[in-house]
Amino acid sequence: MTKPSVAAIVLPKEIQLIPLLITVVVGLVIWFIPAPEGVKPQAWHLLAIFLATILGIILKASPMGTLCMMAIAVVAITGVLAPGDPAKSVTLALSSFGDKVIWLIGISFFIARGFIKTGLGSRIAYIFIKFFGKSPLGLAYSLGAADLILAPAIPSNTARGGGIIYPIMKSMSMSLGSMPDKPETHRKVGAYLTLNSYYMNLIGSAMFLTGTASNPMAQKFAAGMGIHFTWMSWFWAAIVPGMASVVIIPYLLYKIFPPELKTTPEAPAMAVQKLKEMGAITKNEWLMLLAFAILLVLWVTGDIFKIDATTTAFIGLTILLLTQVLTWDDVKSEKGAWDTIVWFATLVMMAGQLNSLGFIPWFGHLIQVQLLGLSWTIAFPIIVLVYFFSHYLFASATAHVAAMYAALLAVGVAMGVPPMLLALMLGFTGSLYGTLTHYAHGPAPVFFGSGYVEIKQWWTIGLLIGIVFLAIWMGLGGLWWKVTGIY
Amino acid sequence: MTKPSVAAIVLPKEIQLIPLLITVVVGLVIWFIPAPEGVKPQAWHLLAIFLATILGIILKASPMGTLCMMAIAVVAITGVLAPGDPAKSVTLALSSFGDKVIWLIGISFFIARGFIKTGLGSRIAYIFIKFFGKSPLGLAYSLGAADLILAPAIPSNTARGGGIIYPIMKSMSMSLGSMPDKPETHRKVGAYLTLNSYYMNLIGSAMFLTGTASNPMAQKFAAGMGIHFTWMSWFWAAIVPGMASVVIIPYLLYKIFPPELKTTPEAPAMAVQKLKEMGAITKNEWLMLLAFAILLVLWVTGDIFKIDATTTAFIGLTILLLTQVLTWDDVKSEKGAWDTIVWFATLVMMAGQLNSLGFIPWFGHLIQVQLLGLSWTIAFPIIVLVYFFSHYLFASATAHVAAMYAALLAVGVAMGVPPMLLALMLGFTGSLYGTLTHYAHGPAPVFFGSGYVEIKQWWTIGLLIGIVFLAIWMGLGGLWWKVTGIY
Repeated sequence: MTKPSVAAIVLPKEIQLIPLLITVVVGLVIWFIPAPEGVKPQAWHLLAIFLATILGIILKASPMGTLCMMAIAVVAITGVLAPGDPAKSVTLALSSFGDKVIWLIGISFFIARGFIKTGLGSRIAYIFIKFFGKSPLGLAYSLGAADLILAPAIPSNTARGGGIIYPIMKSMSMSLGSMPDKPETHRKVGAYLTLNSYYMNLIGSAMFLTGTASNPMAQKFAAGMGIHFTWMSWFWAAIVPGMASVVIIPYLLYKIFPPELKTTPEAPAMAVQKLKEMGAITKNEWLMLLAFAILLVLWVTGDIFKIDATTTAFIGLTILLLTQVLTWDDVKSEKGAWDTIVWFATLVMMAGQLNSLGFIPWFGHLIQVQLLGLSWTIAFPIIVLVYFFSHYLFASATAHVAAMYAALLAVGVAMGVPPMLLALMLGFTGSLYGTLTHYAHGPAPVFFGSGYVEIKQWWTIGLLIGIVFLAIWMGLGGLWWKVTGIY
Repeated sequence: MTKPSVAAIVLPKEIQLIPLLITVVVGLVIWFIPAPEGVKPQAWHLLAIFLATILGIILKASPMGTLCMMAIAVVAITGVLAPGDPAKSVTLALSSFGDKVIWLIGISFFIARGFIKTGLGSRIAYIFIKFFGKSPLGLAYSLGAADLILAPAIPSNTARGGGIIYPIMKSMSMSLGSMPDKPETHRKVGAYLTLNSYYMNLIGSAMFLTGTASNPMAQKFAAGMGIHFTWMSWFWAAIVPGMASVVIIPYLLYKIFPPELKTTPEAPAMAVQKLKEMGAITKNEWLMLLAFAILLVLWVTGDIFKIDATTTAFIGLTILLLTQVLTWDDVKSEKGAWDTIVWFATLVMMAGQLNSLGFIPWFGHLIQVQLLGLSWTIAFPIIVLVYFFSHYLFASATAHVAAMYAALLAVGVAMGVPPMLLALMLGFTGSLYGTLTHYAHGPAPVFFGSGYVEIKQWWTIGLLIGIVFLAIWMGLGGLWWKVTGIY
């Protein structure tokens, strides 16, 4: 009965004492620094708790969930949100658990499980390879297209990249003679496909509101400042720079980081073999496809038919549960979803309350005063570049969005940058900056872990592709957004 | 990658088609019945969804979680909570996920895991068994007494039942061979102790003004009508029917829902042996004990130091996580907690909204009109019975007290029922009606979540014990209150 669980044996020590102490000390130091003029003491104290939590996440002091439980406990007990009212303090500390954005992500995690459980995700990838996989470039586009098709419904880009694309990419590379344990074979095809699959994953994450978990968080923060966008308006803004990226990146990477193999005639044959092994498309795959189609249609037409994106997610999940593609036990067991719901709700709560308590507007005003006289056309790229390159410091896209999105948006808006333009560009940047390092975004460690790409290659090519991303999204994107009247 | 989980193989078919069709048809029929005069159509439509969900749960059309996902989807898409506003509709449908009572329950599950994981729960259980374990009846009285002793000081009966008694009860049952995951062993002792511990919890809640959160609310409503009682006058009125219940219920339950184990003469010897095997108390057990002591102290002194019971629960969990008594993976893997959070939040949402939309007040008014002209000796039991049995509709004792206590008290007083008699009896009823369902009172989902008791058993035995409660409190209680001059 008291037998330790397997996880307890296998898992490394969850608490890192030194980073935890640093986290707590930094939190205490900020707490006891007197609040600057114009900032309420309670807002300042919340800032101390928030920054300590973010620091703890960056330093990996403990799992995010543990830090979040601690943050909720501290926020509630110190009463920063409602001094002198203990019931209201904890109620506000928990308020984000009822947030629809949190549940859009949570429910989408459950739906994504259906792609993996039914095998539909793999089948889609193999079908692309069967038709377009005759060359490394074709393989790159095939895997990218598969990721892109799955992106709207699989907001865990780690699950999408790590659970579906990565195993196919790796086994394909190995059967083409690129072996992780033989460095001289890395450049045959494995290294190229690894980096390309990762970049494609980031593009898919940027293009759809439901493409990665932090996008709805950005949506939420923007809404807190009166800037509202929907699933469809996000997609519409992203479609031109997104599709340009999808077309350009595999080819560009092919030129600057070429695979040694130029043709791969055996890949389509292998895909055909895999598809044969999978047999005819099963009933559950059809049902998954149906649910996916309904989700897509409702997300795209949600604005017209007045159906909220979160409601759509609940409808999709209900279909999968009632048709038994998923069981309720699958849902309960989807640890990644519960984990995400907890840390997401906690970070959103703190960041949102920092805004409500006036800290974010104060900070925005502060920067505005410093940069007085700068025109928005100069401020806009500066803000985006600061956001992009500060990602070298972050081991989590989510922590970065939580820490800086709202503040930078406030700064930019205060300086006259068109609000919707900035809100969207910062939103897209929240995925694109993943190119920079091998720890920059959820799936990065998975792809890096394939062993095909040296860390120096990862960083140098990542920087180059990052600059290309910025050029495409700010240049071509900026043009498109002008045409469509976003600014 | 697509390997089916063990659960998917072991679990029976989750969806029962005929019960599901009945559920949907009943929901549709109620939906299309025109709303009675005085009831908003949207309140009536919500009632249809609520009753269909409850029916689906009773008929086991699917796991509760699946029905709740469906209920949220239907509530959100039909817009009953906010017609014409899709974003607000889904936001309100999810609002209860931010409720602090929900999280007190959820966090109690995680803390309870610590008792089991460290072995402290087993150790306490073995000590109990060593001294009182000669029969299941002895165990039942021991646990009941422990709850009762804590009741005056811990006004969250959910924390008391879920955080303290439940883990001890569960590990004791498991030590005696009643395993939640082995249905054939449920009736050995686990099912009996589960129901008995829950009923004891309700008695403790009824006996003390500070025994459950909704009692002071009733006191406040009564005071608003000029009916004043104190902590002591409440306790004085409750002591005779309360103590009678404490003595009668474990024995009665033993007769009507007997544990298969009749005597457990080997248990004390086994406990001594097990305690010897366990050796000295471990570091993690000390840490668990420390966390438990802190929880107790903070719950007992919460009112003085202004610390909410839910905040205390988060503090307790944080201590367990930081000391690595629990890992974050333990929390993520605690399926029962996530399951409970989902269905409890969904039911609380619907019940609460039925009140907000005016259905519950309308229902109260309806009763008043029906009872016009009756003598108080007939009106009194009718009012109490209406209050008691209308609790089938409520997923929260507090919501029920808030919705109907004042209205029914006003009705009765207007009809000549002695005010103090009615005020107190309705006050006690606010705990006792918790017998009826597995969502009737805060700790119900926790005890039900143990998995020892089938839903049908919970409801049928709950109804029977409820009737016995009414007989004891209105019969013996009525006599006692006559003697002591309350009426």
